[in-house]
Amino acid sequence: MNLILIEPHEVQPAGLVQLADDRARHIHGVLRATPGKPLKVGLLNGPRGQAIVQECSSTGVTLACSFEGEPPPGPRVDLLLALPRPKVLGRLWSPLAQLGVRRLMLTNGAKVERNYFDTHWLKPEVYRPLLVEGLQQACDTRLPTVSVHRFFRPLVEDHLSTDPLVEMKLVADPSATVRLSGVSPPRTGAVMLAVGPEGGWTPFELDLLGKAGFSTVHVGSRILRTDTACVALLALLQDRLEGSVV
Amino acid sequence: MNLILIEPHEVQPAGLVQLADDRARHIHGVLRATPGKPLKVGLLNGPRGQAIVQECSSTGVTLACSFEGEPPPGPRVDLLLALPRPKVLGRLWSPLAQLGVRRLMLTNGAKVERNYFDTHWLKPEVYRPLLVEGLQQACDTRLPTVSVHRFFRPLVEDHLSTDPLVEMKLVADPSATVRLSGVSPPRTGAVMLAVGPEGGWTPFELDLLGKAGFSTVHVGSRILRTDTACVALLALLQDRLEGSVV
Repeated sequence: MNLILIEPHEVQPAGLVQLADDRARHIHGVLRATPGKPLKVGLLNGPRGQAIVQECSSTGVTLACSFEGEPPPGPRVDLLLALPRPKVLGRLWSPLAQLGVRRLMLTNGAKVERNYFDTHWLKPEVYRPLLVEGLQQACDTRLPTVSVHRFFRPLVEDHLSTDPLVEMKLVADPSATVRLSGVSPPRTGAVMLAVGPEGGWTPFELDLLGKAGFSTVHVGSRILRTDTACVALLALLQDRLEGSVV
Repeated sequence: MNLILIEPHEVQPAGLVQLADDRARHIHGVLRATPGKPLKVGLLNGPRGQAIVQECSSTGVTLACSFEGEPPPGPRVDLLLALPRPKVLGRLWSPLAQLGVRRLMLTNGAKVERNYFDTHWLKPEVYRPLLVEGLQQACDTRLPTVSVHRFFRPLVEDHLSTDPLVEMKLVADPSATVRLSGVSPPRTGAVMLAVGPEGGWTPFELDLLGKAGFSTVHVGSRILRTDTACVALLALLQDRLEGSVV
């Protein structure tokens, strides 16, 4: 935890926050904080700030928090991901929040097995704490929004083809001729990246994505498992976006 | 499994190979192969090739394999990694093989806890199958070599400072002024990348690495957990290396 994230409803008058969960155990057991110690904190979906430890024991922690200024700039990447098998999805939540994703859209696809949609990893009460953990690692406060789409074609044709929130659309495909790192990203606005299931998108799906404005890109000759591929692709895309800012 | 890896000692006269483990279950249960079906295979640390299924049942699979030509070009990246906590190390084996690492050197550091060296994840019989799994995902045959170094200083001063197998040395550090993607990698030869523990290298360790020829690089403003950081760094470095080949 490089930043302690506080939910808005946890802030009492005068900025007092009382914690008794993992965050308290981290502050007491790992940071070994004592009264007076300053800590980096952030308000979920809000600004970062500083807290002064008021009380700290094995049963709970009290912080006096002050949050200042604007929230950190939001991530500029949307991820359209064919729903991976449950074990892989479970591994992905924290890294996605660490790397910075604005919207995560989980979708069906020809090679997505139907029972993947039944996994407990799709329940907000299961994945939200993992996203928050990833934000606390990366010192970010912006929680990715998550949506699940059981029908790929209407999602792509009716929504993504005219999505006003996206400046550029890319789809990862090993047969692409352009490297992701060779793309010139927009100076502002978001990029949507589509990542297929194990076994890839079908030609029909690639065609639909192409008609909706997605360009194909690749990241080299090695075939990566979905969780490794997502981290590799997001790292390369974030690097291009950060490098393009003047 | 995008490639079935065969150990040299498993190859009988006329290229026959009999399997009764995970590979057999994959060929029978997932690929649903029948006699006559061609499969992509590779000889561990050797060339890739083709196999024709001879027999395939729930109790075992017989393949007739032919391996041709040279082994695929070996990875050009060595990873010097401060030993992470066991859970994170366990997650890393397969992705490292997927991304392509020539040598993995696991080392001590001031912020590495001593008991990390006791983990079962450091036993070859535990990690080797995970490396092989990663190779089978990425269609590679080159098994990374793994070494464990309990003493950081002599490793860096006596060995790494004059390592003839390495052309360029980089160390990831958030305070660096150069982005990893801004580095001009060598056309040939290997690059060694040093990745520190949670909490980073100490100034003393950074100084030792600097004297041994390591230049600091960063990958953006977000603080990533070791497993996410390794995948992100290796993806960016591989991209630079592949992009530099004429």
